[in-house]
Amino acid sequence: MEGELLALTYGAVVARVLKDYERTDEVNAQLDKMGYNVGVRLIDDFLAKNRHGRCKNMHETAEAIQSAFKQYINVQPQVGKWNDAQNSFSLTLDTNPLTSFVELPAELGGLCYCQFICGILRGALEMIQLETKVQIVADNLKGSSVTEIRVSFIKKLVDALPVGED
Amino acid sequence: MEGELLALTYGAVVARVLKDYERTDEVNAQLDKMGYNVGVRLIDDFLAKNRHGRCKNMHETAEAIQSAFKQYINVQPQVGKWNDAQNSFSLTLDTNPLTSFVELPAELGGLCYCQFICGILRGALEMIQLETKVQIVADNLKGSSVTEIRVSFIKKLVDALPVGED
Repeated sequence: MEGELLALTYGAVVARVLKDYERTDEVNAQLDKMGYNVGVRLIDDFLAKNRHGRCKNMHETAEAIQSAFKQYINVQPQVGKWNDAQNSFSLTLDTNPLTSFVELPAELGGLCYCQFICGILRGALEMIQLETKVQIVADNLKGSSVTEIRVSFIKKLVDALPVGED
Repeated sequence: MEGELLALTYGAVVARVLKDYERTDEVNAQLDKMGYNVGVRLIDDFLAKNRHGRCKNMHETAEAIQSAFKQYINVQPQVGKWNDAQNSFSLTLDTNPLTSFVELPAELGGLCYCQFICGILRGALEMIQLETKVQIVADNLKGSSVTEIRVSFIKKLVDALPVGED
């Protein structure tokens, strides 16, 4: 399956959100939220297909994310730039298929076009009890040669008890 | 590349358009328009990759569309139900990957969830000088076992003359 339809469909998402909100920080927040809603569902598909055991540490989590990129957008990001605590890392994409058809006009300098991906990661990780912060720290649409996404662990979430069982 | 991300991303498109418009006919029109905008760009990618000669008749056009479905959403629709004039046909999909995660609530009975696909076809065909009407005539989200998309030729468009050359 080729990725161009996804790239153009995502472009339609961004165009619509840009119409609805005036400020680019609001647009970024909306794209993040929409991605989050996708991530909380996509994780089920990922887990069902990969029969992945529980990741024991962030390194294993990073590897799983790497293979998810391959599976869903057909690029394999590099994993690296770990912090000392080994709980924050970067995913670096040499090519970003979501931006194949995109050129950012100067007035949209504040737009994080791929914020949707950050939201997906945040949503998916939350479903496996990892609260994270996910941001784009280098953007191929803004002069960088790569797209770099920074994933930082915040805290482990405690499973919510099912209703009536507390 | 797996199709679930496309399905969920498209779901986010529909959810947003549903938020923006009250009437389902307006929602359908918006999805069609967004699809159109995707189609007019996707055709370039399709032509570049397939080095397809000019289709001599609607049968050849239908075959090209069939292979485009395979390429971009990884399903091969059946082509059939030609009218007597041989310029109107149906594309029938046994499975519709765009609707994998979808159940239509009763109050959205008027929604053509996959109208986006119709718009894509209409837009792409317009770029090769075919004005068409494209509609969903059987909908797997509304009790049908298949998705049937009807493509009807309206007229051949004359190439617009480049500015200054008339």
